[in-house]
Amino acid sequence: MSDRLAILTDGLLHDSAAKTGHGVLRYGTREVTCVVDPVHAGRRVVDVKPFCDHDAPVVADVKAARELGADVLLVGVAPMGGRLTPEWRQLLLEAIGLGMHVEAGLHTVLADDPELAAAARSAGVRLRDLRAVPDDLGVPLGPEHPIPARVVHSVGSDCAIGKMTVTLELDRAARERGLSSVFVATGQTGVAIAGWGMAVDHVVSDYVAGAADRLVREGSQRGDLLWLEGQGSLFHQAYSGVTLGLLHGSSADALVLCHQAGATEVGDLARTPLPALPGIVAVYEQAVAWVRSAPVAAIALNTAELGAEAARALCAQVEAETGRVTDDVVRFGPDRVLDAVLSTLG
Amino acid sequence: MSDRLAILTDGLLHDSAAKTGHGVLRYGTREVTCVVDPVHAGRRVVDVKPFCDHDAPVVADVKAARELGADVLLVGVAPMGGRLTPEWRQLLLEAIGLGMHVEAGLHTVLADDPELAAAARSAGVRLRDLRAVPDDLGVPLGPEHPIPARVVHSVGSDCAIGKMTVTLELDRAARERGLSSVFVATGQTGVAIAGWGMAVDHVVSDYVAGAADRLVREGSQRGDLLWLEGQGSLFHQAYSGVTLGLLHGSSADALVLCHQAGATEVGDLARTPLPALPGIVAVYEQAVAWVRSAPVAAIALNTAELGAEAARALCAQVEAETGRVTDDVVRFGPDRVLDAVLSTLG
Repeated sequence: MSDRLAILTDGLLHDSAAKTGHGVLRYGTREVTCVVDPVHAGRRVVDVKPFCDHDAPVVADVKAARELGADVLLVGVAPMGGRLTPEWRQLLLEAIGLGMHVEAGLHTVLADDPELAAAARSAGVRLRDLRAVPDDLGVPLGPEHPIPARVVHSVGSDCAIGKMTVTLELDRAARERGLSSVFVATGQTGVAIAGWGMAVDHVVSDYVAGAADRLVREGSQRGDLLWLEGQGSLFHQAYSGVTLGLLHGSSADALVLCHQAGATEVGDLARTPLPALPGIVAVYEQAVAWVRSAPVAAIALNTAELGAEAARALCAQVEAETGRVTDDVVRFGPDRVLDAVLSTLG
Repeated sequence: MSDRLAILTDGLLHDSAAKTGHGVLRYGTREVTCVVDPVHAGRRVVDVKPFCDHDAPVVADVKAARELGADVLLVGVAPMGGRLTPEWRQLLLEAIGLGMHVEAGLHTVLADDPELAAAARSAGVRLRDLRAVPDDLGVPLGPEHPIPARVVHSVGSDCAIGKMTVTLELDRAARERGLSSVFVATGQTGVAIAGWGMAVDHVVSDYVAGAADRLVREGSQRGDLLWLEGQGSLFHQAYSGVTLGLLHGSSADALVLCHQAGATEVGDLARTPLPALPGIVAVYEQAVAWVRSAPVAAIALNTAELGAEAARALCAQVEAETGRVTDDVVRFGPDRVLDAVLSTLG
């Protein structure tokens, strides 16, 4: 897409609820014209969120965004419950009335909403659901159709520990080295950031591996080093099936294991004990090898809860215990992990 | 359901394409009034398929079935491609016009077909899609809500090797011993046989474990020994995610491993080598133990391609190699495997 985005954060630009917006601003390759946020209007993005590399002005309303030339309104906040509130409905209708396309990953499917759908039809704009998946998915094409790219797949010991961030950092670092590198999104925030991809958790279960296969084939049209975002964890009772489907469908050549430093259990309702890191490495390598061999090339620790010295010591300790390069790619930079992956790919 | 079924096999009662019909006739607990099949009309089911325990007359057309008192037409054949042909459309419309409900697991969703839906509305009958899944699924409820039943889950080294049949045989044998035993269907043929259950391969991937959890909770309302049908294989690239989601969502207390005697590889397009049986046992016990411990209590071999003597020798050999009771439950009877499972459950 060559769209010019206005990111709607609606008072929450400073808050972690705006994680979709933050992701697009930090990692996106799409053009961001402005952020729409009445609370922070008049400032610039970096004044509110210094880690966002794509700086942009913050404007008060959709009309101001349109005047700056934005032609897509991207909902950059996950509202409580993910449903469309009456206030947001008005905002989206206003954007549509001004001729803007609308993109969102809400539980409310925009195109299924009669009022929004009618407004979009009459304005000639698109309503794009970031969670929408193709209706012609199937099983993987198989080894007769090899993937013309190298695939690195991030996996994790738990959900929500930074797999997407690690994947994005490694892709960005690879691109900065001049490699033909591509981030392949498998969740709706990743799709918002990349402008393409698929929210595989919305795919019918029979086709998760087929979805991963299609994504890496599409990725291989865009570059020859693919970073496929992982989902869930083999140790998480509720989501392990999605994790294994991605792992087996990915045609991965190497894995990067993401782990929250110090975590010893996993899950929401059912707290399941985790093995120590050498055991987690072994489980992922064994599970992928049921269909295809791929080593854990490196470990990406999330050490946000530790002091810098303790974090460095822990990385060194894990590296000694597992025999894999271990680092916090957000805190200390992605270069060591990237080097280890490239060396594994050979 | 207390329906009286007419099973439509449409010339194929003798053929393996009628596997849904055969399953209902051999294992079902639902009342079967007759089979509709012009080629075999005038005979009885056991004359055509001796292994079908539920004998019933075969009639030539839907009208004759209605006259015998049938009030549900169940499509018992999987047609090529699974789509509704013009001939079948006429048959279904005729049944609807005679006041019969229609059940099918076609790719064509009956209720989404305007002509069939209108006819059913006007006749006041139901169109039941065997693959339909609830729209309010979520994640498993968790250990604060324990399952008030013992759960035995069948798993397999490959697809289409008889997991459903083994599960049905063990449930039937347990009921014949007077146990409060329930077959829990996870595929559309199983749903046709049992009259309830869920085709988990049509569930959105995020909710496979939650679907398994709901199924065993529903099963525990019906009995206290549950036989949860397995799907796919951890070694099958395309379907391993569904397999693991079921395995982790099932709250299984014991596993029965199904295996095609002599098979050394798995899959359709991608032929993946299988480990030897002790290795397959180890993989399933390790994978389930990532969230909950459950032993492989017994091995059910499909020895259909071997002579009887070779089959018995192989069962003995596998039993010695794996330390698990091993038998062909269809060929030699389910008792030894059932005993081993009950002994494991304690």
